[in-house]
Amino acid sequence: MASTSSDSGMAALKLTEDPPKAEGAAPVAAKPDKKAKERKDQKVAAKPKGEKQPQQAKKKMGEPELIGITVSKSEDLSEWYQQTIIKGDLLEFTDVPGCYIYQPGSYRIWEYIQEFFNARIRKMGVKNCYFPIFISEANLQREKDHLEGFAAEVAWVTEGGKTKLEKRLAVRPTSETAMYGFYSKKIRSHRDLPLKLNQWNNVVRWEFKHPMPFIRSREFLWQEGHTAHLTEEEAGKEVRQILDHYAAIYEDLLAVPVVKGKKTVNEQFAGAHYTTTLEGYIPAVGRGIQAATSHCLGQHFAKMFDITVEDPNQQVKEGEKREKLYVWQNSWGFTTRSIGVMILVHGDDKGLIIPPRVADIQVAIVPVGVTAKTTDADREKLYDEIKRIGATLEENGVRVDCDFREGYSPGYKFNDWEMKGVPLRIEFGPKDSEKSQVTTSRRDQEGKSTIPLSDIAAEIPKLLETIQHDMFAKASEEYAAHRKLIREWKDFVPNLNQKNVIIVPHCATGECEDEIKKDSSGQVEGQEVDVRAPSMGAKSLCIPDEQPEEIGEGTHCINPKCEKGAKMWVMFGRSY
Amino acid sequence: MASTSSDSGMAALKLTEDPPKAEGAAPVAAKPDKKAKERKDQKVAAKPKGEKQPQQAKKKMGEPELIGITVSKSEDLSEWYQQTIIKGDLLEFTDVPGCYIYQPGSYRIWEYIQEFFNARIRKMGVKNCYFPIFISEANLQREKDHLEGFAAEVAWVTEGGKTKLEKRLAVRPTSETAMYGFYSKKIRSHRDLPLKLNQWNNVVRWEFKHPMPFIRSREFLWQEGHTAHLTEEEAGKEVRQILDHYAAIYEDLLAVPVVKGKKTVNEQFAGAHYTTTLEGYIPAVGRGIQAATSHCLGQHFAKMFDITVEDPNQQVKEGEKREKLYVWQNSWGFTTRSIGVMILVHGDDKGLIIPPRVADIQVAIVPVGVTAKTTDADREKLYDEIKRIGATLEENGVRVDCDFREGYSPGYKFNDWEMKGVPLRIEFGPKDSEKSQVTTSRRDQEGKSTIPLSDIAAEIPKLLETIQHDMFAKASEEYAAHRKLIREWKDFVPNLNQKNVIIVPHCATGECEDEIKKDSSGQVEGQEVDVRAPSMGAKSLCIPDEQPEEIGEGTHCINPKCEKGAKMWVMFGRSY
Repeated sequence: MASTSSDSGMAALKLTEDPPKAEGAAPVAAKPDKKAKERKDQKVAAKPKGEKQPQQAKKKMGEPELIGITVSKSEDLSEWYQQTIIKGDLLEFTDVPGCYIYQPGSYRIWEYIQEFFNARIRKMGVKNCYFPIFISEANLQREKDHLEGFAAEVAWVTEGGKTKLEKRLAVRPTSETAMYGFYSKKIRSHRDLPLKLNQWNNVVRWEFKHPMPFIRSREFLWQEGHTAHLTEEEAGKEVRQILDHYAAIYEDLLAVPVVKGKKTVNEQFAGAHYTTTLEGYIPAVGRGIQAATSHCLGQHFAKMFDITVEDPNQQVKEGEKREKLYVWQNSWGFTTRSIGVMILVHGDDKGLIIPPRVADIQVAIVPVGVTAKTTDADREKLYDEIKRIGATLEENGVRVDCDFREGYSPGYKFNDWEMKGVPLRIEFGPKDSEKSQVTTSRRDQEGKSTIPLSDIAAEIPKLLETIQHDMFAKASEEYAAHRKLIREWKDFVPNLNQKNVIIVPHCATGECEDEIKKDSSGQVEGQEVDVRAPSMGAKSLCIPDEQPEEIGEGTHCINPKCEKGAKMWVMFGRSY
Repeated sequence: MASTSSDSGMAALKLTEDPPKAEGAAPVAAKPDKKAKERKDQKVAAKPKGEKQPQQAKKKMGEPELIGITVSKSEDLSEWYQQTIIKGDLLEFTDVPGCYIYQPGSYRIWEYIQEFFNARIRKMGVKNCYFPIFISEANLQREKDHLEGFAAEVAWVTEGGKTKLEKRLAVRPTSETAMYGFYSKKIRSHRDLPLKLNQWNNVVRWEFKHPMPFIRSREFLWQEGHTAHLTEEEAGKEVRQILDHYAAIYEDLLAVPVVKGKKTVNEQFAGAHYTTTLEGYIPAVGRGIQAATSHCLGQHFAKMFDITVEDPNQQVKEGEKREKLYVWQNSWGFTTRSIGVMILVHGDDKGLIIPPRVADIQVAIVPVGVTAKTTDADREKLYDEIKRIGATLEENGVRVDCDFREGYSPGYKFNDWEMKGVPLRIEFGPKDSEKSQVTTSRRDQEGKSTIPLSDIAAEIPKLLETIQHDMFAKASEEYAAHRKLIREWKDFVPNLNQKNVIIVPHCATGECEDEIKKDSSGQVEGQEVDVRAPSMGAKSLCIPDEQPEEIGEGTHCINPKCEKGAKMWVMFGRSY
C-alpha cells in the first residue's frame, strides 16, 4: 500500500476525538424539492451568530448578507474548519457520508500540485497511466497482509444493472494488487527495469468512524507511484527522492513546514521494507499529522506476484541459466489531505489564507470610493483604470480578479475575498487614481500599504513571493516552537498538553510505543489543560532524519517502565 | 446525461457484430503464480503466425523475438485492433471484463487532450472541480427519464468492509444527479449565472454485451461539463462552442475528420432539449462512430432539481416579487473512446500510427551500421553524435528517444517503433555521419529521405507538422469518398454494403428511422458483399450542419414506405 490518509491504521482513527460535525451538515442533494427551497431560504435569512464580523457594518441596499465565520479558530477548531471550507467555497457536503464535493477553489490547488509533481517525476522517467477502479476479489486476496490491512475498509460492488454479479468486485483502496500482475507480465528481463508508473486517481476506503473533509474521507484523490528496480540501493534512492518532492510540495507550494523521517516498525506499512514519511503539525490543537509517505516495499510483493528477472551481473557458463532475482519495489502516495493540512495551518478567524503559489486568484482588485454621487462617466473612468491595472498584472503572470460585481459594497467584497483566502487585495478609488497609486492589503497581515502605479508590474509579483515566504516562515516558527526535546518522562504528558510534539530518546520497539500511547492518554492531575486539547495517547510520528544529538551509551528510554536502552530520538505526538 | 461512449442507447449496442475477442485474452492478473509464469514463457516462445513480418529477418544473437501484428487490418479488424493496442503498449486486459489498463502510451495521449481542452474551456470561464463517485439511490432516482436511461447499466456498491450498507450506492454513470442538487444550492440569484463546471473523472456503465477497448468499456475516463445559463440563447451558443472544441481535438490533435451535426429526436439523449454531435467514420468496416456530443438540456433538470433565479429583466413594482425562471442547462462529454477512433482510423498492418501532436515520442533515433568490426571508440563517437542530434531536436521542442538499447538489431528496433506508431524514425550511421546528414523514415509513408544535419533544427519540426497534416488529409479524403449523397431507396443498402455512410432526404420522424433500420439490415439478394462488413441495419447518425442542398417542396422521404415528405438531409450509416 502506498501512503494514504488513513495509512497508519485503525487504531489511530479510533482515538480521534472532537469529530467534526461534518455529517450533521445539511446535504446539498437528495432532498425533496420543497425542502431544498426552504433550506435555501433559511440560509439566506439566517443571522450571523457568535463573533462580530469586522468591516461588515456598511451594508448596501439590497445587498445579500455575507455571513462570515462565526467561531474563532482557537475556540472550536472543528466548527471553524467546517465553516471555513464551506464558506470559502472549497468543499461541499453530500448525502453520502465521507464523500465530498471538491469545488473549483480546492480542485485548482490540486491541479497546481499535479503540475508541480508531474514535472518532477517526468524528469525521473516516471510515466503516468491508469489502472481500473475495480479489482477482482481473487486478485485482492493474493497478498495476505495487504488484504488484512484493507479488508475492513473495502467497498464492494455486487450488482450490475439489475443483475447480481457472479463475483463481487472491490473498489480500489490502493492499486498494488491491481498493478503487480501487469508488472509480472511486463518485466521479462533486467532490460525492462526500472519500471516506473504513476497514476492520479480516486480511491475508496470505507470503514472508519469520523470522516473529516480532506483529512480523512471515504473517497479521496491522490497519486500512487509504483516502481520496480534491480537493486535495493536504486529503490532506496528513489524513495528518498520522492520524499524530497513531497516535501517541496508542502514547503514550496503550500507553505507548510514538515519534518522528514522514517516510521518506526510499529507505524510502518505492513508489508513494507520500510516507510519514509513527512510529518506536519496543526498548531491550533497541537497535534501531528502524517503528510505523505514513500515506501520501499522490498521484495515482498515481487515474491507474491512473481516479478523476477535473471541476474545480469552473475557470471555463468554457456548453457547455464542465471539466477532469478526478485525486483525491488517502491510505492508512494500523496493525497488531497494536503489541502486540509494547508487550510488548518494557515487559516485564521476570517477564514482561509491561500498561499500565493497555489491561489487561483492571487489578487482581487476592488473599486472603492464610488458613491451615489459618482457620475457614470467617473465610474467608467475608474473601472477602465482598474481594468488596465488588472491587464498589467496579468501580463506579468499574476492571476487577477477585477471585482466589478454590482450591488455589493466594498466592505462586503473585502470580507468575501478574505473568507476565500485571496492572498492580496488591491483597493483602487478616485483618491488612489489622483495619487497614481494602488492601496494593498495582505491577507496574512493587518494593515494597508500603497504602491505607485508605475511600480506594480514589478512590485506586486515580488509582494506575492514575500507573502508566500512569510507564510512559510510563520508556520515554521510555530512548528519549531512546539517541537520539544524531552529527556524525562515527567515532562512527556505536560508537554503534549501544551500542544507540543516531542522528540525523545527511545528504544524503538513496538511494545514500548504501545505502552507510551496508553500511559500518555488522559489528563494529568493538577495541571491546567485546554479543554479542547485532545487527551488521546501519543504515538510515534517518525524517527526524524535530523537527530538532535548522538544517543549516548547507557541513555535510558523515555518510558520509565522500559528497561531497554534508548537507540535513537523518536518524535511522538498526539496525531490526526 | 452528457455525451458518452454508449450514448445512443442499448438498441445500437445490441446490434454490434464482430465482437472483439477481447475477453478471451489472457488476463494479466489473478492467476496463481505458476500459471502466470507458464503463460509468460509461452508468450516469449510463441512463433509469429499469419503474415510474414517485414524487416524482421536479420535477428541478432540473443535478441528477444519481436512478434509483429499477425493479421491484416482489412482482413480481420477486431483481431488487428486487439493485437495493435496490446503490442503497441497502449492497453492491457485485466481479469475484470470491460475494464482495461491504459498504459503510458495511451494515457499520455489523454493528457495531451486534457491540456488542449483545459486551455480552451478556461478561457470560457469553465472551472474544474470534482464530485463524488458514489451517488445515493434517492438522488439518482430524482429524474425519472434519467434513471430509466441508466438503470440497466449502474454498478451498485452494497457492502463496505464486512458490513452490508443500509442503502446501496450507485457508482456514477454520469454526474447530473450528483451535481444538480449542488447547483440548486449554489445558484441563488441571476448574479450566480452562468455557472460553468467541468470534471475529469472515471465513470462506470455496467450492462452491455461486447466491450471493446477504448470504444466501449465498462469503466472509462472522460470530462463532463455541466453549465447553467440565464437564457436559452446563451446556453445554445455554448453548446456549439464546445462542439467546435471537440472537433478541434479530433481534427487538429488526433488528425481524425468528423462531421458536425445535430441528432434526430430518435437519437438525442432522453431528456435533452437537443443534442449536437460529431460523427466519425471507420474506413476498414465502413461504419460511422459517434465521436462526442454536446447537449442542451433545456430546463428539464432545472425543474426536477429546482434550480431557479428571479427574472432580472422583469419590471416589477416595489414590494412585488419577480417571476422565478428556471435556468437553462448544458452538459457535454468527451471520452477515451477518442483514442480508439484515432487508432482505428490511422493504424496499418504494421500497427499503430500516432499523429505527431499527441505522440509522446515523436522521433526515434536508431543507430545503424554498427557491426562486430566497429571499434568501441567509433561506436562511442557515433552515439555522441546521436546524442547531439537528440539534444538539438529537444531544444526545438521535439520529443525524442535515442534508442541505444543493447542487444537489439536495427531491424528489431525499426519494427518495434513502427508497431508503437512513432511518427518519424531517424537512422544514423557512419555513412550518414560522413555525409553530415540524417536518414528519415516517415511512419505514414513508405520510403526514406535524408536531411542535412545543419537543417534538422528547422526541418524536423516542419516534417512532423507535414506528417500531421498528411494524416488528416488522407483520412479526410477517405471519409469524403465514403459519404454518399443518395436519393433513391434502391441505392441505400448497396451503398452501405460498399462501406459508405449515406446522406439522404428524410422526414425526420422516429418511426420512419426505425423502419429504415429494420429494412436495411441483412444482405441484399444478388449483390456481392464483403463477408466482414456488418449486416446490421443503418441508423441515423446526425443531421449534418452542412446540408448538401435545399430540400425541394414535395421531395419524398428516402423510405419508400414513408408518405411524409422529406424535411432535411440526414446522415445514415451502420455504426459502432
